[in-house]
Amino acid sequence: METPYIRVQKRIVKENIQRMQDDANKQGIALRPHCKTHKTPEIAFWQLEAGAKGITVAKISEASVMIEAGITDIFIAYPIVTDDKIANVIALCKKATITLAVDSVFGAKKLAEAAKREGMVLNVRLEVDTGLNRAGARSEKVIEVAHSIHNDPHLYLDGIFTFKGAVVEEKSTLDTSAAGEDEVSRLQQYKARLTEEGIPVPVISAGSTPTARAVSKTRNVEEIRPGTYVYNDAMQYKLGVCELSQCAASVVVTIVGLHDDRLAVIDGGSKTFATDIQPDQNPLRLNGFGIVSGHPDAVFLRMNEEHGIVQLGENHRLNIGDKIEIIPNHICSTVNLHNHFYVEDELGETTKIRVAARGCLQ
Amino acid sequence: METPYIRVQKRIVKENIQRMQDDANKQGIALRPHCKTHKTPEIAFWQLEAGAKGITVAKISEASVMIEAGITDIFIAYPIVTDDKIANVIALCKKATITLAVDSVFGAKKLAEAAKREGMVLNVRLEVDTGLNRAGARSEKVIEVAHSIHNDPHLYLDGIFTFKGAVVEEKSTLDTSAAGEDEVSRLQQYKARLTEEGIPVPVISAGSTPTARAVSKTRNVEEIRPGTYVYNDAMQYKLGVCELSQCAASVVVTIVGLHDDRLAVIDGGSKTFATDIQPDQNPLRLNGFGIVSGHPDAVFLRMNEEHGIVQLGENHRLNIGDKIEIIPNHICSTVNLHNHFYVEDELGETTKIRVAARGCLQ
Repeated sequence: METPYIRVQKRIVKENIQRMQDDANKQGIALRPHCKTHKTPEIAFWQLEAGAKGITVAKISEASVMIEAGITDIFIAYPIVTDDKIANVIALCKKATITLAVDSVFGAKKLAEAAKREGMVLNVRLEVDTGLNRAGARSEKVIEVAHSIHNDPHLYLDGIFTFKGAVVEEKSTLDTSAAGEDEVSRLQQYKARLTEEGIPVPVISAGSTPTARAVSKTRNVEEIRPGTYVYNDAMQYKLGVCELSQCAASVVVTIVGLHDDRLAVIDGGSKTFATDIQPDQNPLRLNGFGIVSGHPDAVFLRMNEEHGIVQLGENHRLNIGDKIEIIPNHICSTVNLHNHFYVEDELGETTKIRVAARGCLQ
Repeated sequence: METPYIRVQKRIVKENIQRMQDDANKQGIALRPHCKTHKTPEIAFWQLEAGAKGITVAKISEASVMIEAGITDIFIAYPIVTDDKIANVIALCKKATITLAVDSVFGAKKLAEAAKREGMVLNVRLEVDTGLNRAGARSEKVIEVAHSIHNDPHLYLDGIFTFKGAVVEEKSTLDTSAAGEDEVSRLQQYKARLTEEGIPVPVISAGSTPTARAVSKTRNVEEIRPGTYVYNDAMQYKLGVCELSQCAASVVVTIVGLHDDRLAVIDGGSKTFATDIQPDQNPLRLNGFGIVSGHPDAVFLRMNEEHGIVQLGENHRLNIGDKIEIIPNHICSTVNLHNHFYVEDELGETTKIRVAARGCLQ
């Protein structure tokens, strides 16, 4: 294989999938993995075969790829507010069981109008903010948005969901247990308020890779939606939610230049590795743009588009032409940069797999 | 068109292409644009039709896409050091006029061995470092690498080249004239040293978008290789090398959420916009992750994978469902995130074009 390329170790992926599934099963919680990490139907089927209830995606175009591959139960965890997208998603609802996200009265009305025209009832979930200040109805708006869904005969409110990540009191944290417990407690408060209003909340869906275990341990949610756990990355390692040996995907690069004996130029830069998780930021304090496997004293210092600069340790024996492997800081956005990846099984056999939903941004 | 998508204004692209070509023509310098920005044969042909001598690419896979589209003169400005890539590039040399980059004795030997086996003479250029400390033979190695090329009957040394960017005395600068003049002066010193050694240097190739004008003005190079100028971006605007009205490409996004009246959630994040050029860094001090067109008081504050957060100005009249346009900080790595872009001509007609060399990293 020519570098740079993503190498995925099948055994580790399967173990990661099984471990998360076992955890969810033990607590009696459904697992609906987010496919934003692998963007690949093949891997989604491994998750479903292990026992996942369905899948989660961010965009309609991703859902479309997954449905074409034969997946039938999909939650699109993203507010859909424009006419063209609503038309597209309604077409998908006729092919598979789709759950839609809503976080505004505007969004609820738009979906309801379209559903009415089609004579359908759409299955929707209300996204609530739990401290990330991103998508999700804010606390003071939740009741209003929930009523606009609940009161419409063309929408069925199947529950509430959130994405929180490792955040406590609106700040990033390394305490993923605290973040997960806080997530569930906020969702339970929302559920209580909605129940008081006479609005049933059948499902609470929460939990990303850092918080999923703490969330399911509470047994106060019906579903978790972690994504990154399937591969893991340097960020998850630093968050303490995986071992380095549980990182299933790395980028293999070639040293194309070596200067001053220690400064290696590699054939991957910002078009090969994600740069959305920067080094040296609190609380993760990542050391460089990835972890160089087997070379603990090497630091991935900087990148341009097609070049990376790695400072090698003092006693390295590497030279121009040698390959090294780097576990990226953020595997999800790294995978989205690659057309293919290579899965290596226990016998060392390698299969080239297309990242079929790569670049599905719409 | 569904958001997020890249909107390219044809008139501005054509003007950008013509302006750079006119500048080069006036100085009698060849223009060989770098296609890493657009990664699209259609745009490369616009550059060639305007008078470009040939094109530059970073990777063999990009060259391959361009050759398939019918382009015949390509400089691959990247050291090729592995057997598999050398085999691939030799196959391309049989289909088009290819110039190869070398910056190490190792690389020169590898290419020479392959050329000998094939009974060919490969056209190579020596990459020299001019202060970026990236690829390029360092000063003390240049003579040795040059001899290894010059002495080999299967390699023809057609000249030297560099990539420097807006750097003076190894630090990023806003003084693009000083950076360009320094670039040429260093290359002239290398040429003088090589000439003393009896090694002819027919071509000096230099100049990226920030430095190209200063470089060609010296008339002491034979060729410039700017790339970003074709579209321009927030970074080039801050560097002072273009006006905002000369930014030809923007990302159109939809506001999917609006909180506290001013915090807009947009449907593009780090899988839609490049994050390799971070805000608030010296010397550019970019204000956010892009420039929101027509809303000078809006700030593109942060991103996750599929979400962006834009703080709108106090008197905005935007709402959920509205579209806004953002000029990215770095258009090259942004384009590489998209499968397609939409070119709008003067009559408002829109054509969907595939980014054919997207993800060509090998």
